[in-house]
Amino acid sequence: MRTGINHLFIPGPTNVPEVVRQAMNVAMQDQRAHDFGAGNLGLFSDLKKVFRTTSGEVLMFSGSGTGAWEAAITNTLSPGDKVLMARHGQFSTLWVDMAQRLGLDVEVIDLPWGAGAPICEFARRLGADKHGAIKAVFITHNETATGVTSSVAALRRALDEAMHDALLFVDGVSSIGCLEFRMEDWGVDLAVTGSQKGFMMPAGLGILGVSQKALAASKTATGRRCYFDFADQLKHNAGGYFPYTPPTQLLHGLRKSLDRMMEEGLENIHARHHRLGAGVRAAVAAWGLQTCAEHPSLASDTVTAIRTPEGVDAREVIRIGYDRYNASFGSGLGPLAGKVFRIGHIGDLNEGSCLTAIAIAELALVEAGVRLTYGSGVAAAQTVYAKAPQSFHLAAE
Amino acid sequence: MRTGINHLFIPGPTNVPEVVRQAMNVAMQDQRAHDFGAGNLGLFSDLKKVFRTTSGEVLMFSGSGTGAWEAAITNTLSPGDKVLMARHGQFSTLWVDMAQRLGLDVEVIDLPWGAGAPICEFARRLGADKHGAIKAVFITHNETATGVTSSVAALRRALDEAMHDALLFVDGVSSIGCLEFRMEDWGVDLAVTGSQKGFMMPAGLGILGVSQKALAASKTATGRRCYFDFADQLKHNAGGYFPYTPPTQLLHGLRKSLDRMMEEGLENIHARHHRLGAGVRAAVAAWGLQTCAEHPSLASDTVTAIRTPEGVDAREVIRIGYDRYNASFGSGLGPLAGKVFRIGHIGDLNEGSCLTAIAIAELALVEAGVRLTYGSGVAAAQTVYAKAPQSFHLAAE
Amino acid sequence: MRTGINHLFIPGPTNVPEVVRQAMNVAMQDQRAHDFGAGNLGLFSDLKKVFRTTSGEVLMFSGSGTGAWEAAITNTLSPGDKVLMARHGQFSTLWVDMAQRLGLDVEVIDLPWGAGAPICEFARRLGADKHGAIKAVFITHNETATGVTSSVAALRRALDEAMHDALLFVDGVSSIGCLEFRMEDWGVDLAVTGSQKGFMMPAGLGILGVSQKALAASKTATGRRCYFDFADQLKHNAGGYFPYTPPTQLLHGLRKSLDRMMEEGLENIHARHHRLGAGVRAAVAAWGLQTCAEHPSLASDTVTAIRTPEGVDAREVIRIGYDRYNASFGSGLGPLAGKVFRIGHIGDLNEGSCLTAIAIAELALVEAGVRLTYGSGVAAAQTVYAKAPQSFHLAAE
Amino acid sequence: MRTGINHLFIPGPTNVPEVVRQAMNVAMQDQRAHDFGAGNLGLFSDLKKVFRTTSGEVLMFSGSGTGAWEAAITNTLSPGDKVLMARHGQFSTLWVDMAQRLGLDVEVIDLPWGAGAPICEFARRLGADKHGAIKAVFITHNETATGVTSSVAALRRALDEAMHDALLFVDGVSSIGCLEFRMEDWGVDLAVTGSQKGFMMPAGLGILGVSQKALAASKTATGRRCYFDFADQLKHNAGGYFPYTPPTQLLHGLRKSLDRMMEEGLENIHARHHRLGAGVRAAVAAWGLQTCAEHPSLASDTVTAIRTPEGVDAREVIRIGYDRYNASFGSGLGPLAGKVFRIGHIGDLNEGSCLTAIAIAELALVEAGVRLTYGSGVAAAQTVYAKAPQSFHLAAE
Repeated sequence: MRTGINHLFIPGPTNVPEVVRQAMNVAMQDQRAHDFGAGNLGLFSDLKKVFRTTSGEVLMFSGSGTGAWEAAITNTLSPGDKVLMARHGQFSTLWVDMAQRLGLDVEVIDLPWGAGAPICEFARRLGADKHGAIKAVFITHNETATGVTSSVAALRRALDEAMHDALLFVDGVSSIGCLEFRMEDWGVDLAVTGSQKGFMMPAGLGILGVSQKALAASKTATGRRCYFDFADQLKHNAGGYFPYTPPTQLLHGLRKSLDRMMEEGLENIHARHHRLGAGVRAAVAAWGLQTCAEHPSLASDTVTAIRTPEGVDAREVIRIGYDRYNASFGSGLGPLAGKVFRIGHIGDLNEGSCLTAIAIAELALVEAGVRLTYGSGVAAAQTVYAKAPQSFHLAAE
Repeated sequence: MRTGINHLFIPGPTNVPEVVRQAMNVAMQDQRAHDFGAGNLGLFSDLKKVFRTTSGEVLMFSGSGTGAWEAAITNTLSPGDKVLMARHGQFSTLWVDMAQRLGLDVEVIDLPWGAGAPICEFARRLGADKHGAIKAVFITHNETATGVTSSVAALRRALDEAMHDALLFVDGVSSIGCLEFRMEDWGVDLAVTGSQKGFMMPAGLGILGVSQKALAASKTATGRRCYFDFADQLKHNAGGYFPYTPPTQLLHGLRKSLDRMMEEGLENIHARHHRLGAGVRAAVAAWGLQTCAEHPSLASDTVTAIRTPEGVDAREVIRIGYDRYNASFGSGLGPLAGKVFRIGHIGDLNEGSCLTAIAIAELALVEAGVRLTYGSGVAAAQTVYAKAPQSFHLAAE
Repeated sequence: MRTGINHLFIPGPTNVPEVVRQAMNVAMQDQRAHDFGAGNLGLFSDLKKVFRTTSGEVLMFSGSGTGAWEAAITNTLSPGDKVLMARHGQFSTLWVDMAQRLGLDVEVIDLPWGAGAPICEFARRLGADKHGAIKAVFITHNETATGVTSSVAALRRALDEAMHDALLFVDGVSSIGCLEFRMEDWGVDLAVTGSQKGFMMPAGLGILGVSQKALAASKTATGRRCYFDFADQLKHNAGGYFPYTPPTQLLHGLRKSLDRMMEEGLENIHARHHRLGAGVRAAVAAWGLQTCAEHPSLASDTVTAIRTPEGVDAREVIRIGYDRYNASFGSGLGPLAGKVFRIGHIGDLNEGSCLTAIAIAELALVEAGVRLTYGSGVAAAQTVYAKAPQSFHLAAE
Repeated sequence: MRTGINHLFIPGPTNVPEVVRQAMNVAMQDQRAHDFGAGNLGLFSDLKKVFRTTSGEVLMFSGSGTGAWEAAITNTLSPGDKVLMARHGQFSTLWVDMAQRLGLDVEVIDLPWGAGAPICEFARRLGADKHGAIKAVFITHNETATGVTSSVAALRRALDEAMHDALLFVDGVSSIGCLEFRMEDWGVDLAVTGSQKGFMMPAGLGILGVSQKALAASKTATGRRCYFDFADQLKHNAGGYFPYTPPTQLLHGLRKSLDRMMEEGLENIHARHHRLGAGVRAAVAAWGLQTCAEHPSLASDTVTAIRTPEGVDAREVIRIGYDRYNASFGSGLGPLAGKVFRIGHIGDLNEGSCLTAIAIAELALVEAGVRLTYGSGVAAAQTVYAKAPQSFHLAAE
């Protein structure tokens, strides 16, 4: 701990709004009380609004987003099932790894880290799968490791055009609640996220959107599961209860976080993330550095992964930011270690926070050996932010 | 919410001490920071002290105790493995159910709810298992639904006497950190608990003690797991890190809770639970009511399940306690619904709190139709508490 | 700190409700922001509802109730002014002392500690004061040291009957927000309280009701004051601001505490205090002990001062309660030290809490040498509580 | 409330460190418990370290710094006493006003707002005061309204050279705990501050250093006081208690805040404030704007008051910062309203926070009509911060 706040610019856990933090400052309570369940029903209905599904269900597991990944797989697929996945970043790689360990027959498409999801190649393989051997196709909506957002809608179109019946799995951990996400419109069957990203809470809830098609699949899927079983959850959730002790403090926090999201409005949230991300990207351009995302059209509005120039260790940038300036940047993961540092601009953030990130990044980059002009990135972002419409104002609290 | 505090006498989540609550009132932080891991190493070493193991490992999963149950099974057993279990309460029943769903071949011994673990019958079957078909034997150390504590040491002796090599699984959810528990001395291979009982925290951490023998078994076990995989945890835990985003607020709370447990001392904690439980049992006797535990020697020091007389619905007792007196008692689970209510005397509690529980229970029992003398149970407990040595004093905080 | 909660039965600071505690868990903010004041206007209007005044003003000073006492005096009286006061407890004694030190000419009526305010004697002296030499008469509505409530209405009648123009000062520190208090109906000119009693908050706000007559007096009073000046406050309060930095966290807490009071309703709050106090008094009677209050009609519904029998040091009762049972009782103040201990039943309390107080008091009394039957006081209180109507239910929060 | 944190750059209340915030998240406790006082004795001894006095006393009043001003006057001076004061900013003006209202005969030296304390003129008048008519001389160490720090040491020298016996009063509200302050070395008799500035807490404690000479004066001073009486405090403080209910939550917070200050070290704290202030001043210079402080040697290291160019309303800068960018800047007070906005760089702050302030100020200034180059101030400050030695690292908490 150093003097002053720690400036948190990692892509999760994200900063917790004061109202959410207050809401979690609670004594314990009886999770079987006769009035406990009623208070939770609104959580489920509001989560559906965030996932944009009316026909599907949204489940919450005590666990992390990784647990929700596993829940998605074990409930709807059977060992030996063939699935189609791509590897183009740390999180898509980990998901492939999980699928393999859970016994799936994974057809992997490997791409450079920084590429988007290979929609054309997905389309090609789906088209070629005449006998429906592929039971599911997985897409990482926002690859947190590379700052790349891929088009789920395009994958849906590919599925539809191939008239392919595979389940559509989406890792929305760093997108849902921040970026546009339309579970129903895009025909997503399994949509996975966690509490510590767009929901602006501590880690501890794995949140999962499940389509009716996925629920139907879960009736016959032979993946072994018990803790993560959909049916157990659904049975208890109907009354607002849970099959095992839920983290009640997080339910209280989620209530406030959903209230806040509903008040700001999903469109406004997306616009804010876009505005904040645009400022960060303008700064990166002003510095003359490259993002990890291969093309501007792939740039994520929740996290920007920035390549340090040859000869400059990105870990050093992160270390300086942390040790000298109390700022936490995201590190380069896997093969990107040392080559990339990341600025998370996700969750409860505003322009001032992004300018802080940029200003501290400039100090750290220069000290790490990058040649750039102090204030250049800040100025570029200021130009973006000055032009933007006013931030949405929440009612006084 | 009604006026005044809610008096929480459920057997978990237990009351959170003020110092633990303060410790969890934190901003988010980077779980990959270079100094993050160092701060967690002490958690693992102190957890080992609580589990009383030096050779084993203790793991923490973001999840509930149910998740830890699943972790124990999927890491060390393979589908089709034969295991020996007993059903004599809701939680032992649920564990049997999980084992079956995860593909184990469960040899179940059914007993009345209120009985202890059938050590003699376990011994007989282990003795008869000449070819070592039984891969594991499961025991519920403290059956929270019935308020029954069984002897793990006796089961270990039975295994030893039968020279049987089965893994010993213990559900210690409502015992570890409260009742005497000796993982190493008792040769426990898998010891399962959660954060919301003896550790006096909110739900959200499944905690698991794993012996070297269990770790060895995990190398070959073919149970499918990924989220709950031991090897992933151990690899990251070595440096104080986690394979996926941990709930950092709970880690801070656990630090304080362990500090407090170490300061009070495990022996003193056990003695306190025994003293508090004895007072509650004296009250039940004074009321002329029966505990669910079949025999006094089985009585749990963390929870007392009380049978209401014929014609009195225990649910009504609970409802009156909750609605009129702001008190939460544990309900009768499964077949005990309506027949039993439970007073949890577990975690951060003292004599005053138990007297509150008893006094409110008297009011609720009378209003529900039980004939008893007001103050009779309170007086019986006071007699116990007045004789007892002074409570342990923690240093001023 | 010992294991388990500290059971707080002092007559203030009182227990803080969870929702209030949450509300104070805030970051700092700009007390000059353009929207800061608007948020506070409702505090003033709701405080007026609690004081039951429409024509007067309610002021909040950063300070304690003692500060509000001083504000009342220095703003409306001038050194040398004659005032009429009674001494029948620690707090009335301290107020007399303050009045003298601030230069007033105090005509003191001394009474036994345990007596009520001497309305007849007040009436006699007011009647005899033909030339209006007495500028103010002070009454301690609820003498916290002795557990005695006096009739402000009766004093108002005495003033009216004597057609006396003196200002009416009321110490309502341990009554306002708990006991019936009618500033306007009773013609109270200065009504003093603090945040840490009926308002269920930490200490830190001195709260003062001021009639128009008192405000008029403040225009000419020559008592020196600046920090506590009414005019400075009123000027800034008009817009919701304060003349110097206010404790913003307490303002947030007060908002929640007022919301809660409004929801429960003042009448219900009074009834609850009466019910809780009646239970405690029934327990004292069952023990065969005496209250400090000379007559049942004087018994306070917010605090009961209990005399220990000859030969039993009340300090020992308190020490045992605190050291052995984690319970805080109020001590005997001034000449009552060692002779009296007090049970506060004020603020955010319910039946269960009062039963805890009684049960622990029994243990402490017996250990200190008092002969009584365990459970006897508890049973007496239970009988009271069982008969009473259900507690008011606040909406789920 | 808008999305993201509110960036607080007012010169108080300052940002509360997380550890202090946690420490204040407490239940109420008995302020008369036998072990309550012992826990507070360290507060008094550590406060003396911060004030740098060994022979004097430090007192804490429930109230604000304004209350502590009044305590200083009423305890040590008598109505009619002649005192020497200067007016060169809002707070020195308010103190003069208070002194007059409390009955002192104030000899006022008026100076432009932005000037330092008039040491030479003080010296001249003290020298001319052959008969010791001047009982006290008051100095505002750091005029928060203008961002001007004056030399207390120089005033002490002037007193010594004039061999004048007047008491030396210092308003250290926005200096003590941040800027070098040496109560004993500088012969300060009354040193006034509050909890919400250098002590990094909410408002609610007026803190006062009192020399033995001042204590001696208080024996004979006839200023009326009771709430703020030194003798009452000292009598109770000796055991760690208080004459009336203290705000216990703030005492817990103060413990943590003092721990943190001791750990960082006063010299390091001063150096940090100097470094942060230098960066802000570099930004102002880069913008081509003027500080309110008349000369760089007067520039305060805790707050910078910045004049907007002719034709630009500083209130508009503040409004834009607040409404569009969630940032709170200090306003121009009194005659400086509309001409000045202030950046507080006081308390628990680091480089990142000051860069945020500067970046947002640039946006607000430009939108308000000031011509400046985006990023220019940020770059100037970055240059300062990059050169500075590493921040002090507190031990991990």
